[in-house]
Amino acid sequence: MCNFKLTIQYDGSRYKGWQRLGNTDNTLQGKIEQVLSKMTGEEIEIIGSGRTDVGVHAQGQVANFKTSSTKRTAEIQQYLYHYLPEDIVVTDIKEVDERFHARYHAVAKQYIYKIWNAPYHNPFLRKYVEHISEPLDLAAMQLATSYLLGQHDFSAFVSSRSKKKSNIREIYSIDITKEECLVEVTFRGNGFLHNMVRIITGTLLEVGLGRMKPTQLKEVLEKRDRNLAGPTAAAKGLHLVQVYY
Amino acid sequence: MCNFKLTIQYDGSRYKGWQRLGNTDNTLQGKIEQVLSKMTGEEIEIIGSGRTDVGVHAQGQVANFKTSSTKRTAEIQQYLYHYLPEDIVVTDIKEVDERFHARYHAVAKQYIYKIWNAPYHNPFLRKYVEHISEPLDLAAMQLATSYLLGQHDFSAFVSSRSKKKSNIREIYSIDITKEECLVEVTFRGNGFLHNMVRIITGTLLEVGLGRMKPTQLKEVLEKRDRNLAGPTAAAKGLHLVQVYY
Repeated sequence: MCNFKLTIQYDGSRYKGWQRLGNTDNTLQGKIEQVLSKMTGEEIEIIGSGRTDVGVHAQGQVANFKTSSTKRTAEIQQYLYHYLPEDIVVTDIKEVDERFHARYHAVAKQYIYKIWNAPYHNPFLRKYVEHISEPLDLAAMQLATSYLLGQHDFSAFVSSRSKKKSNIREIYSIDITKEECLVEVTFRGNGFLHNMVRIITGTLLEVGLGRMKPTQLKEVLEKRDRNLAGPTAAAKGLHLVQVYY
Repeated sequence: MCNFKLTIQYDGSRYKGWQRLGNTDNTLQGKIEQVLSKMTGEEIEIIGSGRTDVGVHAQGQVANFKTSSTKRTAEIQQYLYHYLPEDIVVTDIKEVDERFHARYHAVAKQYIYKIWNAPYHNPFLRKYVEHISEPLDLAAMQLATSYLLGQHDFSAFVSSRSKKKSNIREIYSIDITKEECLVEVTFRGNGFLHNMVRIITGTLLEVGLGRMKPTQLKEVLEKRDRNLAGPTAAAKGLHLVQVYY
């Protein structure tokens, strides 16, 4: 058996998220498995580094799959490029150790949340950024992030649908940059709970709009109460950029 | 009567080009006229700085229209923003002299042709760039542009469907830049014939791919023969960026 590691870019707009739901569904996992199964004649299951929700995008999702096919990496990549829809591109493929597991072995992830901060939205980026028409106080937002860095219980910033045993995660950095109207909030951490990046972003946006004070983030975090945090920012602004192993 | 000047951004992917074809068509001119006619109760005709073809985009198309409506600019802009589809955005509106004519008074234009030069296409830019998988020799392309600068008869670089009396135009500059995989060819000139930017780009790509020599551009230009130039580059890579008055 060979074990292959895929790096995948996708425009998530048309898909029902990463995780396969049935046999002929419109999920990213499902689409990629269909093509690999057709190629190998086997029933291929791919293991993603984690799920992405409906409408979330990826520049660097990672997945692995095992096959007894004798096809080599270049051949598999060409096949995938040919048969996958044009909003999914496998940018890299490597043969890896048989024990490599894209989810268990991920040690850190990078997400970017993209915001178009201008009176009018941008027609070219409309599916890939959240549009905020009022000016954002980025300095206040950056200050607010300081309370979230390090290891914490992020129960205040997790979807109520999450079923994880522990909500303790470590955030290494949250950086906010602006280039013309495009604001990018870059998150690096050892792992992110369901909706965690989107709820943190939604809360930072409350700060940026002057509806919350930066210091409130400390209180929200400590009280571990989802109701004290801001709304969940829209899926379309979220991009899984890199998974570290 | 008031005369208003609009600056318009659009993702041209879904439209049959700028020019209205009928009363209920799917053109950019038609869409904008529909909204303005609804707003004013008049039959509004907008005059674009020029047509853009099916699939061509704009960051800064300019148009004007006359109305006896007493609505002010902010109100008109809000109305347009509310009722236009999300792939068309009027980014600026100004009241101008009654004699202002968006086509006759345009003195220069800037177009950018965008190319994604990498083995695989980019799923996020797929509708806004042309994908070229082989490496491009940008130095050769830049050299080739030198023969086209200044005032020339561009008959070799015009669509056979063009019916202009004169094919003489002046190109002020053609600049080629690359940032990561994105190559941008920026054209500035006093006017461009039908398909002229796309045919010049298609010819420059032949040079970039080593199929033509830079010096051949001089010959193609002088012979005024469309058959000697390269193919018409795809519409989706072309962006009308600015119109000068």
